[in-house]
Amino acid sequence: MSLEKLLNAESVAIIGASKDKTKRGFQAIKTLLDEKFEGVIYPVNPKESSILGLKCYQDIADVPGPVDTVLIVTPARTIPGLLAACGAKGVKGAVIIAGGFRETGQDGQRLEDALKEAALQSGVRFIGPNTSGMINLKNNLNLVGLRNAPKGDIALISQSGNMALALITEAKVKSLKGFSYYIGVGNEADVKFHEYLEFFKNDPETKAILMYVEGMRDGRKFLQQAHLTTLSKPIILLKSGRTDTGRKAAGSHTGALAGISEVSRTAFGRAGIVVIEDSDKLFPAAETLSSLPPIKNNSVAILADGGGHATIAADLLTDLGLTIPELDGKVQARLKSILPAAAAVGNPVDVAGGTDSDPTIFADCVDIILKDPAVGGLLIVGLFGGYGIRFEESLSLKEEDAAHRMGKLIKKRNKPIIVHSLFASARPHSHHLLRYYNIPVYDSLEVATKCVGVLAEYGGHLQSHKIKTNFVFNWGAKSKPEARKIIDQAGKEGRTLLLEHEVKRIINMHAKAHAIPITTDMLASSVDDAVNVSRTLSGPLVMKIASPDIMHKSDIGGVRLNLNGEEDIRRAYGEIMENVNKHNPHADIRGVIIAPMAKDGVEVIIGTKIDDQFGPVLMFGMGGIFVELLKDVVFRVLPISYFSAKKMVNEIKSPLLNGMRGKPPGDKKAIHRLLLLVSEIIEAYPQIREMDLNPVIVHEQGLSIVDARIIVAPNKQAVLD
Amino acid sequence: MSLEKLLNAESVAIIGASKDKTKRGFQAIKTLLDEKFEGVIYPVNPKESSILGLKCYQDIADVPGPVDTVLIVTPARTIPGLLAACGAKGVKGAVIIAGGFRETGQDGQRLEDALKEAALQSGVRFIGPNTSGMINLKNNLNLVGLRNAPKGDIALISQSGNMALALITEAKVKSLKGFSYYIGVGNEADVKFHEYLEFFKNDPETKAILMYVEGMRDGRKFLQQAHLTTLSKPIILLKSGRTDTGRKAAGSHTGALAGISEVSRTAFGRAGIVVIEDSDKLFPAAETLSSLPPIKNNSVAILADGGGHATIAADLLTDLGLTIPELDGKVQARLKSILPAAAAVGNPVDVAGGTDSDPTIFADCVDIILKDPAVGGLLIVGLFGGYGIRFEESLSLKEEDAAHRMGKLIKKRNKPIIVHSLFASARPHSHHLLRYYNIPVYDSLEVATKCVGVLAEYGGHLQSHKIKTNFVFNWGAKSKPEARKIIDQAGKEGRTLLLEHEVKRIINMHAKAHAIPITTDMLASSVDDAVNVSRTLSGPLVMKIASPDIMHKSDIGGVRLNLNGEEDIRRAYGEIMENVNKHNPHADIRGVIIAPMAKDGVEVIIGTKIDDQFGPVLMFGMGGIFVELLKDVVFRVLPISYFSAKKMVNEIKSPLLNGMRGKPPGDKKAIHRLLLLVSEIIEAYPQIREMDLNPVIVHEQGLSIVDARIIVAPNKQAVLD
Repeated sequence: MSLEKLLNAESVAIIGASKDKTKRGFQAIKTLLDEKFEGVIYPVNPKESSILGLKCYQDIADVPGPVDTVLIVTPARTIPGLLAACGAKGVKGAVIIAGGFRETGQDGQRLEDALKEAALQSGVRFIGPNTSGMINLKNNLNLVGLRNAPKGDIALISQSGNMALALITEAKVKSLKGFSYYIGVGNEADVKFHEYLEFFKNDPETKAILMYVEGMRDGRKFLQQAHLTTLSKPIILLKSGRTDTGRKAAGSHTGALAGISEVSRTAFGRAGIVVIEDSDKLFPAAETLSSLPPIKNNSVAILADGGGHATIAADLLTDLGLTIPELDGKVQARLKSILPAAAAVGNPVDVAGGTDSDPTIFADCVDIILKDPAVGGLLIVGLFGGYGIRFEESLSLKEEDAAHRMGKLIKKRNKPIIVHSLFASARPHSHHLLRYYNIPVYDSLEVATKCVGVLAEYGGHLQSHKIKTNFVFNWGAKSKPEARKIIDQAGKEGRTLLLEHEVKRIINMHAKAHAIPITTDMLASSVDDAVNVSRTLSGPLVMKIASPDIMHKSDIGGVRLNLNGEEDIRRAYGEIMENVNKHNPHADIRGVIIAPMAKDGVEVIIGTKIDDQFGPVLMFGMGGIFVELLKDVVFRVLPISYFSAKKMVNEIKSPLLNGMRGKPPGDKKAIHRLLLLVSEIIEAYPQIREMDLNPVIVHEQGLSIVDARIIVAPNKQAVLD
Repeated sequence: MSLEKLLNAESVAIIGASKDKTKRGFQAIKTLLDEKFEGVIYPVNPKESSILGLKCYQDIADVPGPVDTVLIVTPARTIPGLLAACGAKGVKGAVIIAGGFRETGQDGQRLEDALKEAALQSGVRFIGPNTSGMINLKNNLNLVGLRNAPKGDIALISQSGNMALALITEAKVKSLKGFSYYIGVGNEADVKFHEYLEFFKNDPETKAILMYVEGMRDGRKFLQQAHLTTLSKPIILLKSGRTDTGRKAAGSHTGALAGISEVSRTAFGRAGIVVIEDSDKLFPAAETLSSLPPIKNNSVAILADGGGHATIAADLLTDLGLTIPELDGKVQARLKSILPAAAAVGNPVDVAGGTDSDPTIFADCVDIILKDPAVGGLLIVGLFGGYGIRFEESLSLKEEDAAHRMGKLIKKRNKPIIVHSLFASARPHSHHLLRYYNIPVYDSLEVATKCVGVLAEYGGHLQSHKIKTNFVFNWGAKSKPEARKIIDQAGKEGRTLLLEHEVKRIINMHAKAHAIPITTDMLASSVDDAVNVSRTLSGPLVMKIASPDIMHKSDIGGVRLNLNGEEDIRRAYGEIMENVNKHNPHADIRGVIIAPMAKDGVEVIIGTKIDDQFGPVLMFGMGGIFVELLKDVVFRVLPISYFSAKKMVNEIKSPLLNGMRGKPPGDKKAIHRLLLLVSEIIEAYPQIREMDLNPVIVHEQGLSIVDARIIVAPNKQAVLD
């Protein structure tokens, strides 16, 4: 259901309105009046007849006109009942301030469930509970205590009231920017992050979306919506709770799901979200991305009036992955013609005193530099804006002149300019002018360079957006009847573990479409059967126990390697059965699996799991010590594209697949295909909770799946929506 | 020679004094007058009789009284001559502003050499050239254009004038702190970084030393002096030029040696220097370390009035390696008794609105928390200072009350408090009070948490300072006559490469003292000799060419492995000679080296080189792919202690030495001993430029040096002082 009436309400009722100045029910009305809400306000309180000059109603039902949204400031336990009454009145939305729900434990969780049920029945969508509220700055619908927030084009979504306060304060003090909306998400019990995104995507006055997130309810829908949104509007996101300690702190704060898993970083990146690690850079990144054209070619120039800052800026931009290309010869010549002999004109450009007596030369330099097609954007570092302060007051006017000219060059060249200045805190008029032209000014080099970095990151995403990215599962698509039977059979037997040969059969059913050569492992149910099977295979063989009760086959002596001939097969069969019997005399033994030993190659592992917030997730990594201790693994939210499969393999740090030390390279294409196959299998069978192919041996041509395992949900119902 | 007269001059002459207001020779005198220099000023210019009311002298020789220091503002080429005149007059120090020396290329380098020679002859010590100047803020000896720098207890040493300007501006705008001295190091042609350190170590009014460094001339002396200095005063250092691009930018700026190598990070750490990567945190770190007691146990508490910032702060402090311990049960109970039920009291402590109507409760909480012996320091995050602004003006007085009480608690408990506040830029009076008590206040959480981090880092260094650290070489100590003979012989033969068996003989001479079992490799000069030698050895053998003309033996087929019995030996000898002859018919062949094949084990490598800035440096790392592509190596400036050797091995990321996958662990003690032995050898023979033991195979007990190589300086003179 649309959030239109909730977020753009033209009439609002305050349930729990009060005459007590210390109460939220009073402050809320006072704020709406002071901030000049453009709609109608209805106080509701059975004990009062009027508040702050407004007629007060006994009950929501008594309100004469339509009510789009209610602000509920009464205690937690009263609210499910109130929502029912609101629904009856035809109210479309609610903002629920009270805490005391999920974040407090089991009783609170039950109350929150009741709240959700009441909302569902009554058709009222709500923000919260446990929220600071929401503000629509376009019609002054201010349902938060906070006054005088600056208006502008950034939508702010936050899970922390004081983070929001920090960002709003920063906007007011350090920029000319402001906000279109503020949403305090609270417990995210009803309206979810992705719904806000969709709303802001369509809001013509919002140019960028700024988010502070501690944890989210439906990460997959969020990713899908973010992916669509970032094609037209940047999303800037800070997630906290990265470390265990941080997650503990977040848990006791909003009752958010324990942090956002490691998976999120690449997932957010694929969705085009700009992730900020550092709260100092959060607002500046939003300011920059909402104001300036992105950098398309990942390359920037630095213009400095002193070497120290140029050096640090070059270091920081390099750390961020940007290129600082040598300027074109003609561009260098033009710069030389207007700068002193001591100036450096390669990039970074150091004016070497060339602007001391005339800062308009900055604008001349900018004009020359931005013409270089290799330059995607420009960072100015040093003292700009401080010439009038340091040297002579009259230079201020020249700086203003330069600001006007630089501002106009942004439009002309469609390339961004960001300014770092030591004098930002002195607030010279030239800085106001720069901001008027959407050129942000920072006194921190780290902030300024990071803002250049996010312009390049977002620009890079827009350049590559044609690459197919998808976070929507088409559950059950491409499933095979035979494979469904295997899974159903396990369900009927009350098993959650699929046996190795069952897993390999499922893989084989899907393998053809992906052109993956798979060795067929054979199940033998007796020692004689084993001997017969072994005769159909060539080379040394491996034998493994097949039992749903035994998950770790090697650990209990259930695997025998390097078997040649009948004698080996019979001895191995006997040993395995004896070991299994010792370990678990009641084990349900289906026989043994016999397969050829895998050829030499590089060990990799592939696994899937269900992430709390993002659903099915794929892991790929190097096997052996690389996964165990070097953590050389990468993650993707499923499903993946062929492009993603290639990127996953490329992101692995270990060089083993490239053919080191005289060994041939591994067959990367076979891995790409296998990753896609796993993605397809997970999508085809919603019952699968975990799938592990470990190890997979990658050969020069093709690969061998040495061990495979699937865990399914306890019954055959799909466990995911 | 002492820098006393140079930095604490009571009389100063300005050579190149001028009446032209745009000239430095005018501005310098104006600044000294305006800033009220407490000593005597002598303008020197043959063409003027008086400047700004001061008598002007024709020549430095004409100045009637003694002159401690001169400021020279004349062009580069005039200065060597002027220094001679200054020496004759008895001047002790000079500040040389002009550029045009080493930073401009070879001609400049020659001029700089002339300058150094003139200074040596005349006995004048000088700062610069290519510097912004120096300021002594204690007696207002201001030899920089900059006015009104705040006075205080931080000594500032910088290789960039505008970095210095940035730091001084920041101090003035955002703190109550200031500076004792500012030194613009410039090209560091005469007075070096370590000499400034020594001066400030002994200056009673300097409490901390803040440095911006692009590159340095004598890294080893700097480390040694820093190590002594940090025992009583913290050094805070930002080094730029970390990346290639950054180094390029720095090179064109101060003509500094290309960056500071990777070696520096651990070296600076061992010397107790606090290294800052981020210019935003540079001044705050100095402010904090010059003001507050360090954190002794790496553990802090967080006190918050809102969950969002508590979560981010916990993340950031965890990233920095700090512990956020659960508070003591009694402490928690006491906090509970004064805070609302919703408050979190474990750590982070979240007051959950408990300070809204009375911010003095902050002081109560601080009092309770700091009593917990597990808490080494406290970070307050959120809104402190803003209660009077946000809620009601009268709360400001309560915040001031709290600030006074918190300030006094620092002294009482000798534990630091740092405050993060959203309202720092609003400059409430309570924040001034906090700063009056040396409690820094920041509006950035990253800055505030980093400042907590540096207090813990420096505290940790002081706790461990008894560990023997030494950067002084005792060249030639412990050298062996036999080994010196081997090196001398190579010199006589015009060789720079020592042969493998020569290297191993030198190692053997030193090995006994370190209890390292070394296999003796034998040199055989003919095929029959080889057969004889092989009979004295057991197990499969290896044979390698011994020739000073062949550095990479395997590459040209000069190595044969796994030799058993006479036939193998003879064949291998023939093959090797044939291959060598094919490769280089004129090679000087000394014979072949024969040794037993090394047992199985883990490959490591040990190497030394001469770093431009720090001299002899030791590298240790894992062999094979670990060094080639994972760069799993660590560095130390030599010499090292046994403790350092142990730390080096522990810093290796790869788990192979710990005995993975059923293999036994490697003999780490043997590695420690070998590292110490290498350190001793490098110290014993100054002729050694490079030493490589690669690979070394580490067994469960002991190790085998499989290949070894030493490169010596082209003649037998020591190449290092």
